[in-house]
Amino acid sequence: MALVDALARHTDEPGRLTRLYLSPAHRATAEATLRMMREAGLKARIDAVGNVIGRREGRERGAPALIIGSHLDSVVDAGRFDGPLGVVAGIVAAEALARQGPLPFAIEVAAFGDEENVRFPTNLSTSHALAGRYCPEWLDARDGDGVALRDALLAFGGDPDAVATAARRREDVVGYLEVHIEQGPLLESKDLAVGIVSAIAGITRARALVTGEAGHAGTVPMAMRRDALAATAEMIAAVEGIGSRRADTVATVGAAKVAPGAVNVIAGEVAFTIDARAPEDAVRGRMVAEIESELRAIAERRRVAFAIDPFMDSPATVMDPGLAAILEGAAKALGVPAMRLASGAGHDAVAMATLCPVAMLFVRCKDGVSHNPAESITEADADVAVRVLIEAVRRLAAQPSWNR
Amino acid sequence: MALVDALARHTDEPGRLTRLYLSPAHRATAEATLRMMREAGLKARIDAVGNVIGRREGRERGAPALIIGSHLDSVVDAGRFDGPLGVVAGIVAAEALARQGPLPFAIEVAAFGDEENVRFPTNLSTSHALAGRYCPEWLDARDGDGVALRDALLAFGGDPDAVATAARRREDVVGYLEVHIEQGPLLESKDLAVGIVSAIAGITRARALVTGEAGHAGTVPMAMRRDALAATAEMIAAVEGIGSRRADTVATVGAAKVAPGAVNVIAGEVAFTIDARAPEDAVRGRMVAEIESELRAIAERRRVAFAIDPFMDSPATVMDPGLAAILEGAAKALGVPAMRLASGAGHDAVAMATLCPVAMLFVRCKDGVSHNPAESITEADADVAVRVLIEAVRRLAAQPSWNR
Repeated sequence: MALVDALARHTDEPGRLTRLYLSPAHRATAEATLRMMREAGLKARIDAVGNVIGRREGRERGAPALIIGSHLDSVVDAGRFDGPLGVVAGIVAAEALARQGPLPFAIEVAAFGDEENVRFPTNLSTSHALAGRYCPEWLDARDGDGVALRDALLAFGGDPDAVATAARRREDVVGYLEVHIEQGPLLESKDLAVGIVSAIAGITRARALVTGEAGHAGTVPMAMRRDALAATAEMIAAVEGIGSRRADTVATVGAAKVAPGAVNVIAGEVAFTIDARAPEDAVRGRMVAEIESELRAIAERRRVAFAIDPFMDSPATVMDPGLAAILEGAAKALGVPAMRLASGAGHDAVAMATLCPVAMLFVRCKDGVSHNPAESITEADADVAVRVLIEAVRRLAAQPSWNR
Repeated sequence: MALVDALARHTDEPGRLTRLYLSPAHRATAEATLRMMREAGLKARIDAVGNVIGRREGRERGAPALIIGSHLDSVVDAGRFDGPLGVVAGIVAAEALARQGPLPFAIEVAAFGDEENVRFPTNLSTSHALAGRYCPEWLDARDGDGVALRDALLAFGGDPDAVATAARRREDVVGYLEVHIEQGPLLESKDLAVGIVSAIAGITRARALVTGEAGHAGTVPMAMRRDALAATAEMIAAVEGIGSRRADTVATVGAAKVAPGAVNVIAGEVAFTIDARAPEDAVRGRMVAEIESELRAIAERRRVAFAIDPFMDSPATVMDPGLAAILEGAAKALGVPAMRLASGAGHDAVAMATLCPVAMLFVRCKDGVSHNPAESITEADADVAVRVLIEAVRRLAAQPSWNR
């Protein structure tokens, strides 16, 4: 907890925690992480895209590495655990494991830098760099001030022309483990300190536009209206209903803008967003098709125009069954009750899964709150998570199939 | 139609018709109306609050007056008929009636100036002045630029200290008739040129606030959400349902603001408006009570906080049965089919009803559109309306009970 607090000192905005990718606070946090890793006995460096990588060799120098990681960047006005908890858990685990003698694989701790994707329109760019899946056009992405990622990376001390040097070969990696706060209320509601992630949900996002007819709220009879807001209300209920059919799916209308938006004028137009997630892509595909067909039927019945424009289709990431079983076995061996649960939020593990087997351990957070200064976990739960992580690595080391 | 077009030339904004109370365009229109009245043989003047009043004496000088009127002010980017049609109809009818010999009462045409209540937070201030119900605090009301109504009235050439001189005594007035576009689609849908207004609906307006809990759209399971927008959607459907139970009531949610309003965040708060209208106050009272109780039940079931803040409670104005019957009889005598219908919009007749019997004649408008440059009526319908108005005045003159 002290290490997490130490990292939380670095912020781009006095009075609240904001640490965007490649900002001065990100640089300061990366350097603090570098020192932390070195104090824990790791050989540490900052790579070309700003990831902090600490390594302890295994029994044989140059052996494939088990990577444990998470991210240092944050949203605006963030909490302190989303990201740094997983980095610190990796450092603490690596140090503890070193005391137990050499492992058949190397241990690396990775502190990624661009998980929240707040500053630039990228997608997990730094973990994708490690996985060898960096999109070159990300370097041309610009932040809200018009600064290109390439220039921000240079100012940070990175090297946009050496992104490829951050990439790992499949044969040099054993797998990837990530400890992260749940960011949801499920563990708390089940009174569990930790959970084993089964899959990271795939996401479909769309913008929808309902066009009815604006009119006088006093003079147009109800039966003759083409009220865009009343139609949207029915659509929001439909989206909610479809998202609620299974326990592991969600569907959300989070934004809606009403025009003209006056007390005495029937709404002529409403623009709204849809976000639908499922841990299985086939399930998500069916949800999205159902949402679209129900919304079109509502529009037709209410004689309003309806347009839908999908702008994100991100597939689900299934955790490696073997790695997840090892996390589960570790919890059981320690007498720690744990549940399997899907992650509705994206994580660096999505990028790492394109390189190697991945698994994640979720830690209970207070009221399920994240992306908020009120984000909170207990010291006891953090302790449980790190102990499960250590035990999992020990068990992995004992399984010959993982010791390539 | 030529007279309406002549008035439409005066606007505060080049390229579109905007004529706010006491603006330069209002002054120019008032002067044009003054000339029009004089050309029609009326003795005309502009009163202390900016009303243009034209009078033709009846058989005896100083006899009570039948007032025919409507308003000259408009909304921003208005059509040309909402208001001026009724003023012009009064002038044309007065001129035609003069050719048919003296009446047992005087005829006055009133061109009010503050019906739309766009510039100042008033309520039909100029017709209330005529009715002797002017609220002195209206003089202190300020427009968007901070100009007090009192100063605007002085600049216009009016006299804020002489508002009382605009007021009529009950014994000096026979009644009030107003021709106005329907501003709704009912007459068009029934293929009728005109309709007899039965009542002007009372209006309740309220602001509502739904407070749920913002959260991550991916990580909070559907069953654990307190989604303010999903709750609001159900409330909007309830308001629509309650407004639809009777053919003569309406209930509208016209504005809704969602916070934080992001694609991946469950809405934490939605502020929305409610506008409910009915031609009978008892009916409206029941509607409002039902809306409030259904919305509270929805909030309770969904575990969101709900607050409702009513900010307008304007009673219904029932048209005088005798005057309305005279309008109806006039239409029938001319072979003009007409229906009775309630007005969902407010009119100067609401203010005049506090002084004397009132009745209104609605004229079909294209697609029910008003408050819009597309506002349109046919020459044939305007002709029907003025002929019905003239016939009604003739019939009124023939009924001893009205000739006080």
